[in-house]
Amino acid sequence: MHAPVELADIAADVLARIKSRAPRVHCITNSVAQAYTANILLAAGAIPSMTIAPEEIAAFVAGADALLVNLGTFDAERKSAIDLALGAAEQGDKPWVLDPVFIERSPARAQFAQGLVGRGPAVVRLNHHEFAALAGGDAAGDAPLRFAKKHNTIVALTGATDVVSDGERSAKVDNGDALMGLVTGMGCAGSALVAAALVVERDRYLAAIAALVALGVAGEVAAESAPAPGRFASWIIDALFGLDRATLRARSRIS
Amino acid sequence: MHAPVELADIAADVLARIKSRAPRVHCITNSVAQAYTANILLAAGAIPSMTIAPEEIAAFVAGADALLVNLGTFDAERKSAIDLALGAAEQGDKPWVLDPVFIERSPARAQFAQGLVGRGPAVVRLNHHEFAALAGGDAAGDAPLRFAKKHNTIVALTGATDVVSDGERSAKVDNGDALMGLVTGMGCAGSALVAAALVVERDRYLAAIAALVALGVAGEVAAESAPAPGRFASWIIDALFGLDRATLRARSRIS
Amino acid sequence: MHAPVELADIAADVLARIKSRAPRVHCITNSVAQAYTANILLAAGAIPSMTIAPEEIAAFVAGADALLVNLGTFDAERKSAIDLALGAAEQGDKPWVLDPVFIERSPARAQFAQGLVGRGPAVVRLNHHEFAALAGGDAAGDAPLRFAKKHNTIVALTGATDVVSDGERSAKVDNGDALMGLVTGMGCAGSALVAAALVVERDRYLAAIAALVALGVAGEVAAESAPAPGRFASWIIDALFGLDRATLRARSRIS
Repeated sequence: MHAPVELADIAADVLARIKSRAPRVHCITNSVAQAYTANILLAAGAIPSMTIAPEEIAAFVAGADALLVNLGTFDAERKSAIDLALGAAEQGDKPWVLDPVFIERSPARAQFAQGLVGRGPAVVRLNHHEFAALAGGDAAGDAPLRFAKKHNTIVALTGATDVVSDGERSAKVDNGDALMGLVTGMGCAGSALVAAALVVERDRYLAAIAALVALGVAGEVAAESAPAPGRFASWIIDALFGLDRATLRARSRIS
Repeated sequence: MHAPVELADIAADVLARIKSRAPRVHCITNSVAQAYTANILLAAGAIPSMTIAPEEIAAFVAGADALLVNLGTFDAERKSAIDLALGAAEQGDKPWVLDPVFIERSPARAQFAQGLVGRGPAVVRLNHHEFAALAGGDAAGDAPLRFAKKHNTIVALTGATDVVSDGERSAKVDNGDALMGLVTGMGCAGSALVAAALVVERDRYLAAIAALVALGVAGEVAAESAPAPGRFASWIIDALFGLDRATLRARSRIS
Repeated sequence: MHAPVELADIAADVLARIKSRAPRVHCITNSVAQAYTANILLAAGAIPSMTIAPEEIAAFVAGADALLVNLGTFDAERKSAIDLALGAAEQGDKPWVLDPVFIERSPARAQFAQGLVGRGPAVVRLNHHEFAALAGGDAAGDAPLRFAKKHNTIVALTGATDVVSDGERSAKVDNGDALMGLVTGMGCAGSALVAAALVVERDRYLAAIAALVALGVAGEVAAESAPAPGRFASWIIDALFGLDRATLRARSRIS
C-alpha cells in the first residue's frame, strides 16, 4: 500500500514526467469537449490530436503514445473511427482510456460501451450514473473493485469522492470542487489526462490516481480565486499548468 | 398585461425554478456553439445533452424536458437528427425552440427553417436578418406579432432591443450589451436558455421574456468588469450563475 | 522594401480597415478550433461563418469576402466541402488561405494538401513540421521563399520567429509569446485573421505580415497580465480587440 503522502509525490512525479516527455494523446471525443480537452492536455504538457477521419486515424494513433475513447456525440463515423483506432492501439501496444459518457441515457450507447470493455481499456473513467449503466446489476458497494478485477482494467469512478480500483487495490480521492461539474467537458478532459499519465507511469492504477488528484487539486486552487463556473473553467487550466509538488502534498486527500 | 417590475420578478422566479428543477435540455446545435451553449445551461442550473446520432437521439429527447433545434452547421446528419428529435418531442409533448441561424445566407437553410415552423416550435428565437428571411415579404413593423399569431408560436426577435410576441401580447426588452454580439454562440446559448425556461414556466411568452431578460442583465453586469469580448465570454456565464432578484429588479428594462 | 516602422503602421491600417469593413470570412476548419477562431475574428471586427454542408457551402462562400481552408479534423464531408468552397471562391475571385494542420502526421492529409497548393491559395499559413511535410525534400534555408515563388503564393511560416515570403520579398516577425502554443486553435485562428486581412489589403504579402504581427503583439500584451494558458486564451482576444497603433509601433519586431 502507498501512504497518502507517497501518492501525492507520485502525482507530482507523473505531472513532471508529462511536462518533460510531452506525450501525444489522440482523443476520439465529442465535439462539445474537444477544445477544452485539448487545452487541459496542453496545460499539462501533453500534445493532443483529435481527428476521426477513417483515412488517417490509424496513422494518428500509430504516432501517438496513448488513446482516449470518449462516447459523447456518438455517431456512425465515430464508431468506425473507434474501431480503427483500437486496432492501431492494439498493434502498437498503446494504453487507452474508455470514457462512456451518458451511456445511462441511451441503450445503444451502453451496449456499445460494454463491447468496448472487452477490448481491454487500461482505464475506464466514468461517473456513478455511467458506472451503473455499464456494470448492470452489480453497481453497489465494492462494485468498482469487482468490475476492475473481472475485466482486468482500472475503474476510475469520479464524483464528490473519486474511487480508483485495479481489482486488488482501491483508493479514494477526496479532492475537487463542485464547480468542476458546471464546466462542460471537465470529465472528458480528466479522462484525457489519465491517458497522458498512462504514458509516463506503467502502474496504471497509480497513473489514474495521479491524474484525478492533479485535476482535483487544480480545481480546489482555481475555486479559491474563481468562485463561478465561467472564470473557473480558465483558472483550473492555469492551476494545472502551475501545479507544484508542495501544493499536491498539502492538498491531496487520498485514503 | 404585466408591469415591468412583475416581469422582472417572473424572470427571477424562472431562474430559481431552473436551479431547483435542473431541467434537461437536449440541444441540436452547431459545433461552433456547442460548448458555450452547454456552459450557459450549466451555469443556469440546467443539464445539457448534445448528441445528434440517429441511433440514440430519440432516446435522449425522450429523456429530456425540452429541445433546442439550431440550424447552424446544417448538414445531412443534422437534418435527419432534427426529424427524429421532433418526432420524439411531439410524442412526449415537450416544448422546443427553433433557432434558424444564418438562414439569410442560404436559400436551402431558409426553406428548411420555414418547414420547421410548421411543426410547432414553442418559440422561434432569431435576429433581424434571420426574421426577414423567415418571414419573407412581411418583416416590418408589427411583423413579429403577425408571424406569431399566424404560426401559433412565440417570436423572440433579438437585437439592440429584443421583441417578444405571442400574437396578442408584445414586449420590448432593452437589456444586454454590444459585447454579446462579439462572442460566438451567444445567440444560440440564449435560445437554449429559452428552452430551459419553457420547462419551468407554462406561459411560453413569459418564459421567453424571462430568458432574454436574464441573459441581457447578465451581459450588463459582465460588461462592467470585463469590457472586452474574451473575458466577457466567461464573465457573463458567472453573472448568470449569480444573478439574483434584486439585480433583475434594478436592471430589467421591459416595456 | 518596407521599413519596420512602416510595416507596423500597415498592420495598424489593416486592423482599422477590418474593423470598419467587417469582412465576412468563411472558415472550413476543424471542430476543435471553430469557436476560438470565430471569437478571434469577431474581436478583430470580422464576421465568421463555418458551415460545411454541401447544400449550402457554395452560397456561404459566394456571400463571403474570403475563405479559410483548414485541414484539421479531415473527413470525407470536409474534403467535399473544400472542393465546393474552392469552386465558389474561384468563381468569385475571393482570396483563400490554406492551413495544412498536422499534415506531418498523416500521408493522406499531406497528399491532399499538396493538391490544394495547386489550386492557388493566396497564403499558406503553417508551422515548421507542416512546412517540411508540404515542401518535401526542400525545407531548409530559404525554402519558404523558393516554395512561394514556385507555387505563386505567400508562405507564412510560424514559430518562435515567423517567416513570410512571396518569392521575392521575405520578412521575419519576432513577436508572440510561448503561451500561444498552449492554446488549442491559436494557429488556426491566426490563419483566419490572415484571411480577413486579405480582404482589406491587396498586397497579400503585407496582409499576411499584418495579421501575424497583430496576433503576435496581442499575445505579448496578454502574457503580461495572464501568465498561464487558461486566462491567456481570453486575454489575447481582448488584447487583439483593443490593439492600437501606438502599441503596434512600440512592439513590432519585423526584420
